[in-house]
Amino acid sequence: MSKVFADLGMSLDGFIAGLNGGEKNPLGDGGLKIHEWMFRQKSFREHLGMEGGETNNIDNEIIEKTFNRIGANIMGKRMFVEGEANWPEEAPFNCPVYVLTHQKRKPWERPGGTTFFFTDEDVQTVLLKAKKVAGEKDVRISGGAKTIQQYLNEGLVEEFIVHLAPIFLGSGARLFEHLDKTKFSFEIKNVIHSKAITHLYYNVKNN
Amino acid sequence: MSKVFADLGMSLDGFIAGLNGGEKNPLGDGGLKIHEWMFRQKSFREHLGMEGGETNNIDNEIIEKTFNRIGANIMGKRMFVEGEANWPEEAPFNCPVYVLTHQKRKPWERPGGTTFFFTDEDVQTVLLKAKKVAGEKDVRISGGAKTIQQYLNEGLVEEFIVHLAPIFLGSGARLFEHLDKTKFSFEIKNVIHSKAITHLYYNVKNN
Repeated sequence: MSKVFADLGMSLDGFIAGLNGGEKNPLGDGGLKIHEWMFRQKSFREHLGMEGGETNNIDNEIIEKTFNRIGANIMGKRMFVEGEANWPEEAPFNCPVYVLTHQKRKPWERPGGTTFFFTDEDVQTVLLKAKKVAGEKDVRISGGAKTIQQYLNEGLVEEFIVHLAPIFLGSGARLFEHLDKTKFSFEIKNVIHSKAITHLYYNVKNN
Repeated sequence: MSKVFADLGMSLDGFIAGLNGGEKNPLGDGGLKIHEWMFRQKSFREHLGMEGGETNNIDNEIIEKTFNRIGANIMGKRMFVEGEANWPEEAPFNCPVYVLTHQKRKPWERPGGTTFFFTDEDVQTVLLKAKKVAGEKDVRISGGAKTIQQYLNEGLVEEFIVHLAPIFLGSGARLFEHLDKTKFSFEIKNVIHSKAITHLYYNVKNN
């Protein structure tokens, strides 16, 4: 069964990006550190068209498994704008990406199978479209924090993965705030760790 | 070798207690939920003089191991005041507890081996005293958040344990804020989980 999931890196003090993020400072001050464990892995580097990287470890496997399950992505406008300025030509999605924005823009097709669709429809309608193109694969709510919060509060997320980095940002964009906790609850599904990162898997029970 | 460690329950959104905490509302609004996994375990209940509880699970073992390693505790004034109104006669420490407070007060001895010592000395001096009485056992910086932050920022904590509950408080006392991240860093030591809780063990590297 196709699932709707979120998958994010977070610092131990709860941030998914630092302050002052933008086109020239992707993920904000210190934000890239959250994903250092990922940048080192072959499976991630391949998707960015980069050579080298570590193999034979659980982190590499997890990235590969996650990429393979995704049939469509949904992301907020800010994440797209920041990414557009920084992704390589072959944007690392390899499937349709729905961008929530009021800006009118024709679909933007990239080499490698990524096509960005720009939409100002409500989050439920966008999810239905994403599910349809994903088929038997899963839909990932990619971020940023506000988009995740919106989908959580609508009771539309079924699985939530947090890659918890043992670092502190001190400030930035918090993942878990503005949540309506009457709408959903988390249950521990699995936890896997390496020396670099802790992967927390939760099932989301929507009320 | 005797170690200095912290050991706290935290919600997934980063709180160790809810709002409006006090003598009549221990751990604040929703704060007790963070520790529900613990209240169910026999090893915890025994230390509070309560009957029953679960056994034969990893959570029960972890509580027992932690109690056994502690030779002395250090806590802030607010944690003591809140606890004083709520602990059973046999306070659940069974060893000396140093309370950081400007209030002058004679040591307060409870049945079961807990004696509270009240001190306004600096955190380093208090730690030296606690280490001395702990002998080969470990010293636990018990809380609250401000006391933990003070000891972290002084570079005095060597191990940090977070019991990460899959719940959201939305507001309250944050554990990881006001930190000087130039002073220390965390390294993943171990991660253990049950269906109810994720135990995160970090080594603290002090700069």
